[in-house]
This record gives sequence, structure tokens and C-alpha cells, in this order.
Amino acid sequence: MHPEDLLKQVAFIKEIDKLKYIRRRTRLFNSDRHENDAEHSWHLAMMTLVLVQHANQPVDVLRVLKMVLIHDLVEIDAGDTFIYDTTKNHTNTDEERLAAARIFGMLPEPQAREFIDIWEEFEAGITADAKFARAMDRFEPLLQNTSNKGGTWAEYDVPFQTVYNKKKAIGEGSAALWQYAENLLQESVATGILRKDPSSLNP
Amino acid sequence: MHPEDLLKQVAFIKEIDKLKYIRRRTRLFNSDRHENDAEHSWHLAMMTLVLVQHANQPVDVLRVLKMVLIHDLVEIDAGDTFIYDTTKNHTNTDEERLAAARIFGMLPEPQAREFIDIWEEFEAGITADAKFARAMDRFEPLLQNTSNKGGTWAEYDVPFQTVYNKKKAIGEGSAALWQYAENLLQESVATGILRKDPSSLNP
Repeated sequence: MHPEDLLKQVAFIKEIDKLKYIRRRTRLFNSDRHENDAEHSWHLAMMTLVLVQHANQPVDVLRVLKMVLIHDLVEIDAGDTFIYDTTKNHTNTDEERLAAARIFGMLPEPQAREFIDIWEEFEAGITADAKFARAMDRFEPLLQNTSNKGGTWAEYDVPFQTVYNKKKAIGEGSAALWQYAENLLQESVATGILRKDPSSLNP
Repeated sequence: MHPEDLLKQVAFIKEIDKLKYIRRRTRLFNSDRHENDAEHSWHLAMMTLVLVQHANQPVDVLRVLKMVLIHDLVEIDAGDTFIYDTTKNHTNTDEERLAAARIFGMLPEPQAREFIDIWEEFEAGITADAKFARAMDRFEPLLQNTSNKGGTWAEYDVPFQTVYNKKKAIGEGSAALWQYAENLLQESVATGILRKDPSSLNP
């Protein structure tokens, strides 16, 4: 044991407590209470455990769990970016890379390196593990919004086609989940909680 | 794929959102805001990833993660039991077993069975995986309380020896963490945020 490793790790454990203060736009199920990033990350981890049988390709559950548990830690410095924000790029901004270097950099090497690599892999979304982790990240707010009369879709007047384009990524991780999700989206249009932009093409 | 499996899994995913409303006695680091069970479970998962090198025996990280992620789900029905509550047994009450049967029972077999078994193993605290998971569960509030001028120890006037007896379990999972924790406890007495009961024996 390197005692200095443990001191760094404890400092990191205290630092990441701040994730509990990062408020997401989405709200808890059937609720008006906003979700925070720590709760969200826990929920994605549970979804990973429960839904992994539906992955398109075999995935390494432990690696997917690491991804979903740490994927939002950069928001401690960079803040939450709303997925439907048209003025700001969601993925891998310079601000987020700096945040990753600072926050994961509190850990001893090679732990810091491993977490940064895992986070980069999640952000890139190319590997089977990352695709499934990203499917979890897209699926949870969809379930929340449908339970909340449209939730952020209604609140920010996001049309069907925009939501559809963002949610399609679910299919890259799991065709079965995407089939379920697509039905939910069509149902949401039918029940009037998701606006079908008349100018959009029907997918 | 069994479509009915997915429906059960989605129902479970919605149900466990309730963990975010279960308020713990402990508060966030340097904060007066109470922690909820979902945030707590996420934090234990992160601690597991970060601290696993300090385990006394080799552990299966994925199994430990499962334990800490699900360990408090029974509290959705049974409520949070304060560890220093002298009138109520903390572990594995009938109420908690019923809760496990109901909540995990929402999942398809054999998933329900696996989660119930993992939860029972955590509660029993006998295997190396369970001992390390339980060490995480004892270590987080200790860090929180020391960051909060004694936190629940001060708030409920819990003396050193009682805290010490509860926290000793950390050593069964990790001698290195227990050494660190024991120092923190002694320091807490020295700084006056943990009361040394004069009638207690010095360990």
C-alpha cells in the first residue's frame, strides 16, 4: 500500500460529492423535482445491470458501469449541458477535457489515466461498451419525460424530429430498446405530449 | 428477446426511482443538505472503483458494485434505519425481506433471484465481496461526519465507543482503510467533534 495513494483517493471521493449538486433539466418520474447528476448516474448503473441482455453486441458490464458512473463527473467544473441546447455543443468541449484532467487527475496514476480513457471512450461512442452506455444515458430521460407529460420536451418546446434524432443513438446500443423507445415516442405524439413539427419528415 | 422481460425491467426501473426520495440522516460533505439513498449508492460505487486495491482479499469488483448499487433498495418499502438507532435492529428485518421480495420480484427470473441473493449476501457480510462492500457503506458516512463537525454523531450525541464498534467492520473489508478510519476517529475525539464517553474503555 502507498499511503499517499489513499490520501489522493480520499480527496477525490470528497471532491466528487459535488456531482450531487449538478441539477439536470429532467425531473424524477412523475415528479416536479429535478434530478441531479449523482442520482442519474446511479440510475444508469442500475439500468445497465438490468438491461444488459438487450445489448446488440456482447459488452463488458464492468466497463459499462464505469462509464455510466463517471460520465458526468466533468460537469462538476463544466456544468450540465442540455441535450437540446442548440447553441452549445454537447460533447467533449475543451472545458470538459480540462475538467476531466483536473478531477480524474486528483487520483494516483494509473487510476487517473484509466478513468480519463474510459470517459473519452464513452464520449467517442464507438466501442460496443460505449454504445450501450450511451443508450442508457438516452433512455432514462425518455422514460422520465413520458412519465411527466412530456417533461423537457414540453417545457422547451422540442419537436418530435429533434427528439427522434437524439434518441436514435439508443439503437446503436440496443435494437430491442430502440424499438421500445420508438413506440414510446410515437405514442407521445399520439397523446399530445410531444409536438410533431409539421415541417419535419416522418421517419 | 422476451418482450415481457423488457416490460418487467422497465417497470422495475421506474419503481426504483423512489430510492431518490429516501433521505438518510447523514448530510453531504461540508453541507447541511441530507443525502438520499440513490446518491449514497452512487458514491459507494465510485468508492469501490477507486479503493478496491485496499481490499484485504481479492474481490470481484462487478459483484461488489452490484451489492452497493442495490443494497438500499429495500428501503423504498422499509425506510431508512439509522445505524445508531438502539430500538431497531438494522439488518435484515422481516420488513426488509418482504421489500426485497416485492421490489426485486418485479424483475424476470432469474434476475430477481440473482438480486435477492446478492442483497442477502451483502446483509450477511461473510464473503470477501460483502465485507468490502460493507466497508464502503461504513466509510462514506464517517468521511461525511468528520467534514460536518461531527454530523450525526454530534446531532444524536453518539459517543466514541459506539461509533468505534460500528466502524470496526471497515477493517474486515480493508485493514488499510480501517487504519485510516481509526485515525480519523481519534482525531475527531481530539478536535471535540466526537464525544469520548468517560465510562467507555479505550480500545
